[in-house]
Amino acid sequence: MIFETIITTVNAQNEPHMTPFGVRYHDDFIVISPYKPSTTLANILATKCAVMNLTDDVRVFAGALTGHMHFPLVAADKLNGFRMANLLAHQELQLVKVEEDAVRPTLYFKSVHQVSHAPFLGFNRAQAAVVELSILVSRLDRLPQDKILKEKEYLQIAIDKTAGEREQIAWAWLCEKIDNFYAAQSGQNIA
Amino acid sequence: MIFETIITTVNAQNEPHMTPFGVRYHDDFIVISPYKPSTTLANILATKCAVMNLTDDVRVFAGALTGHMHFPLVAADKLNGFRMANLLAHQELQLVKVEEDAVRPTLYFKSVHQVSHAPFLGFNRAQAAVVELSILVSRLDRLPQDKILKEKEYLQIAIDKTAGEREQIAWAWLCEKIDNFYAAQSGQNIA
Repeated sequence: MIFETIITTVNAQNEPHMTPFGVRYHDDFIVISPYKPSTTLANILATKCAVMNLTDDVRVFAGALTGHMHFPLVAADKLNGFRMANLLAHQELQLVKVEEDAVRPTLYFKSVHQVSHAPFLGFNRAQAAVVELSILVSRLDRLPQDKILKEKEYLQIAIDKTAGEREQIAWAWLCEKIDNFYAAQSGQNIA
Repeated sequence: MIFETIITTVNAQNEPHMTPFGVRYHDDFIVISPYKPSTTLANILATKCAVMNLTDDVRVFAGALTGHMHFPLVAADKLNGFRMANLLAHQELQLVKVEEDAVRPTLYFKSVHQVSHAPFLGFNRAQAAVVELSILVSRLDRLPQDKILKEKEYLQIAIDKTAGEREQIAWAWLCEKIDNFYAAQSGQNIA
């Protein structure tokens, strides 16, 4: 089972880095597999810790792909690092094991501290649509244009019916990125 | 903005009823629009209250459409009624206003008590896929077969990649219902 979360890490100078990650649970461990090389991987290997942010603010997922990552952070409670200021829950994670791999090492963490900050409000179809479109946008250069535009059209229904302001902002960021990507591609074709 | 929740109500004999509802927030009110006639509407008009259950157990959404509604309930804290035993959060709601309508009256509630029971674990794409397929299944007799099967195929990807046991059970219930519906239809066509 994979949960879409936001992982915050710091480097040796305590500078924060924040990025969406699919997280798995393995026995008592929380597991992520960052690509090599990546800031998240370097930070975790340097500091042996990370923070998992559980948020329903889908702007963070869309923002990570579109250059909008200005979300307030506050210091973590127990470990060196930061958590998102606005979120539903967070867990502070201690690195306990690394399974080496040439492409994506597997990192195993123990959760040493967890806090609920705000209650879950229920499923929102627009939030799920933003998460889905974010995944499509992260694969813009690998998936056929036709598939992306068709799935976007399908996901748009949930946006029209159930989105709030945050979901609409996130959706607009992703749509702009898709438009720009295909505009640049067709510009290249003409050139 | 619409959140997919589970509403539990009781009748005058304190017998529980449980059903998925899309819920909106209007100023300080929580708003639902049940169809006429429905058990939920009758119960709320009789008792003036309801419980909103916020759960990530998507079997409840699928179960409501497929005859699997055996989820444990416990007494609500402040109001007459019940909440789900296993859930992330719940709110106890007092009816304050009814806007009459021939088809779907609008019910306005004040939240008089809310409790977080377990932390949000992050977005899970399979949970969202079950919610989406539940909505399609609730419209089996109104949507074209081709559309339903195509969207199911698309949603299946998230199930294959990210589902846990609860999501797989819910998915199987919904798929069985779809298969039976079209099998019965094609039986009718032959007859």
